[in-house]
Amino acid sequence: MNGRVYSNWLAPWRHDINLSPSSWAGDFSAGLVVTLMLIPQSLAYAILAGLPAHLGLYASVLPLIGYAVFGRSPALAVGPVAIASVMTFNALQSFASPASPEWIAGAIFLAFASGAMLFLAGLLRLGFLAALLSHPVMSGFISGASVVIILGQLQTLLGVRLQGDSVATQVSSLFQRFSGVHLPTLGVGLVSAALLLLARRYASSSFARFGLRGLLHELLTKASPLLIIGLMALSLWFFDLSDQVATVGAVPSGLPGLSFALPDASGVTALLSSALLIALVGFVESVSMARTIGRRCGVVTDPNAELRGLGAANLLSGASGAFPVTGGLSRSVVNLEAGARTPMAGVISAAFMIIVLLGLADMLSVIPLASLAALIVVSVASLFDGRVFLDALRFDRADALGWLATFTGVLVLGVEQGIAIGVMLSVANVLWRQSRPHMAVIGRLAGTEHFRNVQRHQVETLTNVVFVRVDANLFFGNWDYIADFLEGRARRLTSGGVLVLNLSSVSDIDTTAIEGLEALSVKLKSQGARLVFAELKGPVADKLLRSHFFNDSVVYLSCHEAFEALRQRNGQGLA
Amino acid sequence: MNGRVYSNWLAPWRHDINLSPSSWAGDFSAGLVVTLMLIPQSLAYAILAGLPAHLGLYASVLPLIGYAVFGRSPALAVGPVAIASVMTFNALQSFASPASPEWIAGAIFLAFASGAMLFLAGLLRLGFLAALLSHPVMSGFISGASVVIILGQLQTLLGVRLQGDSVATQVSSLFQRFSGVHLPTLGVGLVSAALLLLARRYASSSFARFGLRGLLHELLTKASPLLIIGLMALSLWFFDLSDQVATVGAVPSGLPGLSFALPDASGVTALLSSALLIALVGFVESVSMARTIGRRCGVVTDPNAELRGLGAANLLSGASGAFPVTGGLSRSVVNLEAGARTPMAGVISAAFMIIVLLGLADMLSVIPLASLAALIVVSVASLFDGRVFLDALRFDRADALGWLATFTGVLVLGVEQGIAIGVMLSVANVLWRQSRPHMAVIGRLAGTEHFRNVQRHQVETLTNVVFVRVDANLFFGNWDYIADFLEGRARRLTSGGVLVLNLSSVSDIDTTAIEGLEALSVKLKSQGARLVFAELKGPVADKLLRSHFFNDSVVYLSCHEAFEALRQRNGQGLA
Repeated sequence: MNGRVYSNWLAPWRHDINLSPSSWAGDFSAGLVVTLMLIPQSLAYAILAGLPAHLGLYASVLPLIGYAVFGRSPALAVGPVAIASVMTFNALQSFASPASPEWIAGAIFLAFASGAMLFLAGLLRLGFLAALLSHPVMSGFISGASVVIILGQLQTLLGVRLQGDSVATQVSSLFQRFSGVHLPTLGVGLVSAALLLLARRYASSSFARFGLRGLLHELLTKASPLLIIGLMALSLWFFDLSDQVATVGAVPSGLPGLSFALPDASGVTALLSSALLIALVGFVESVSMARTIGRRCGVVTDPNAELRGLGAANLLSGASGAFPVTGGLSRSVVNLEAGARTPMAGVISAAFMIIVLLGLADMLSVIPLASLAALIVVSVASLFDGRVFLDALRFDRADALGWLATFTGVLVLGVEQGIAIGVMLSVANVLWRQSRPHMAVIGRLAGTEHFRNVQRHQVETLTNVVFVRVDANLFFGNWDYIADFLEGRARRLTSGGVLVLNLSSVSDIDTTAIEGLEALSVKLKSQGARLVFAELKGPVADKLLRSHFFNDSVVYLSCHEAFEALRQRNGQGLA
Repeated sequence: MNGRVYSNWLAPWRHDINLSPSSWAGDFSAGLVVTLMLIPQSLAYAILAGLPAHLGLYASVLPLIGYAVFGRSPALAVGPVAIASVMTFNALQSFASPASPEWIAGAIFLAFASGAMLFLAGLLRLGFLAALLSHPVMSGFISGASVVIILGQLQTLLGVRLQGDSVATQVSSLFQRFSGVHLPTLGVGLVSAALLLLARRYASSSFARFGLRGLLHELLTKASPLLIIGLMALSLWFFDLSDQVATVGAVPSGLPGLSFALPDASGVTALLSSALLIALVGFVESVSMARTIGRRCGVVTDPNAELRGLGAANLLSGASGAFPVTGGLSRSVVNLEAGARTPMAGVISAAFMIIVLLGLADMLSVIPLASLAALIVVSVASLFDGRVFLDALRFDRADALGWLATFTGVLVLGVEQGIAIGVMLSVANVLWRQSRPHMAVIGRLAGTEHFRNVQRHQVETLTNVVFVRVDANLFFGNWDYIADFLEGRARRLTSGGVLVLNLSSVSDIDTTAIEGLEALSVKLKSQGARLVFAELKGPVADKLLRSHFFNDSVVYLSCHEAFEALRQRNGQGLA
């Protein structure tokens, strides 16, 4: 590990942004606004993960500080999010029963394991692996997961328990059990949902009409979900429904102790693949959010720094006894708009959360679960994004297929199977695209030193000489296709013929391609013809020099030089 | 499914090869020679897969005909091979005990499942997925598997049973049990191995010295393993060792009945991933062999036809009650050299195998197992290929790492884990390579209409105008990298500035890139600058026309046209 990389890790604030006092003020107010959103959301997403609500608060302290130390996005807001929580729930489903000590130990293990994977991937500079999931596939996955989440929350909202794992059996079970609906719970849920929707639509403009402006306006607007949920808790007490409607219940006061409880070894291997998928989805989603933020702020996003930041956040979430966290979409947008310009905003947010844990934990115990379920449904509904599918239908059918297959996979086969399908489709997409590089037989534009595609330009050629230009790095993924093309041209050469390979666009070449070029050179020799090179770049020439065949090969600086040399040596006129 | 594809399936002989009478003679003699090699090999590889030896013969009839109907390689010799057999053994290890009815049912299922996957992949034209395994990774896998196979055969050769799954425990167990070695078995094995090695080295030249030439010479040379194994069987009888040394035992006479015995549903899902890996390895190995053959014969290899051929072969192997088959390396080389020029050679081979099954099955029962083990060791030892690793060390360290990690993975973690590591490394390699496309800021060569990289040529530029050329198709796998580059250039433009994107090398664009271009266009507008296009190809323009932003965009036919227009409109001189 060299010094440069090391200094990069620990210098999260050393980026292009002006660290004026106003940037600290921005970070401070953004941190406060995000905490107000984070309180109800973190409780809700812990419950979504099948965990005691207060673990959501635990996942909102140290992880934010961990990201601030190692991550570099000016405004990515890390913490509990809906997608990671539903993936945690799914991973643990066959492992233990929700909220049991084994379940909690499993969630902690998922946080540790995905954190270790992310951090290690960051050290190994594997950020390029974000291409394992294309944008349409990710959108299909999130849209499918949002349907799964909403259906899961209907249980809490209706006060019934649905049967079955798949979406289809759950929906049919919903209709069968409709008579068993618990009306007070449903009432709390519906009123909460209605108020949350109204607040999202009108809170900002209403507060403005009351003359509020600046930070206070921003705070009240973003605190409206928290206020609504507090209002619902008050109503329970007012209408004497506290015994009938389930609430969050006792929230331990104080800070999380560092915890290292882990499940026994037998279950661990099964959870590793789940941890890998949670890490992958969290990373792809966060880095795409970080890029959006980075472009708005004029900062280049380093995916490897994001990997290290998310890794540290998850390791510290595990150490806090909590569950996987990642960058949240809605909170990051709010963070950016509220003025966050350095990861310090996350530290401010964590500091406010510590105050909540120390002082206000008791008050949170009376929050009705149905209100949190309503908050999840309202938040998650906006994650469903069919527009991406419709756009993809217009632009690129492979993308549309990727969206639809992943979406359907999540609903029919399950969350993890859905994302596995998405990864396979994305990888197949990449392999297919790179397996067909552009190649051209080229000739000289009369009177110039320029060479162009013979199919598109009037050019000069030489008899029994073929100039080919390959417009891609040569490697195992495209070599077969290139070799078929070159063999096809080489076959027509007779004794004395020359195949000139213009490698001006080639900046790298691997073992498979070098061995293939050697085979081609041998083949040409057996016909009495030759393989020669033109416009080799330095690194490619270096590698070729280490091969067996290259020492006898002729290399021309340019196609023009090759053209003139071959014309004179063969005594040929132009063909 | 259109008519052209359909006619391709059923026209295996419709390729560029001249079907003269001499080609039929070549196919006939090649078919006979291959059968003589196939008899002992197929018995040995069935035993390697933990199956009764005669199932190897069953796997050498219908599968060869299936390949001949759907496959198109002139000389690929399909049938039982060492790698697929050891993968079958590994897949079934935790499933049943070798040679039990459940084990056989599992092997049949693996053949059916991998056959169905291969055939379907052929119909879906997924041949490009061969890039899931690079050549060095495949070589590392085969080298590792050859060590595993040889160590496994030591049990049969020494007449002891080794403990443990991993290579390390087996080797230590070997030393502990050395005193228990069964000497007659060891003697038969060692003598067989010595004779096989001598025959490989000297059989051809010795027979030539006795004046043999042409087909008879070829037949006797290639039959020498069969003759040596027959000789060992005779010696057992002569030295009265038949009771002490294990033999193949009763081989049922007659042809395989069509069988559809399958394991019960509980085990099936676990076997599906094994079937996928067997199919993948078999395909990559066969298609690389088929390409080598194709280039020697001047025939273009269609990976999708090979997928269908291998798929049909495995489906028919399952239907024969046998196990996964694929293209064999050594037999294919012999097949080609013995004159095979169409898949008809495989049909001839199958016909000879039917004669063996009908008439000679009884004679095969006396073959000593130790001789077959010696044959496996001698054949498989040549699969170990450290030269690829050494070459890769010289050319490309990522390739060397791929070889070593896969090889080590097979030995330390197991066969399936090793190939899984190989797939992951190959995919990571592809993703990494395509994530960094070549891009250049370009300018005009003075006095010409040609544009070149500003870093490498003296060129003319315009103030507040940037020309950028991207040398790769735009898609999700490289878009982030491209976007970072473009944003970096765009940021320096002031009001009235223009970013000219030369897409002359771009022949495809996906949803992610189109959405990204739209975001870039909006960003530029907010600065008072503009995004314009030059040298758009038809398909790219068609896709862009369906997007939201493109209708207002200016498109120039060439960079030169854009250069002149922008110079005049801005009233600028040259920068």
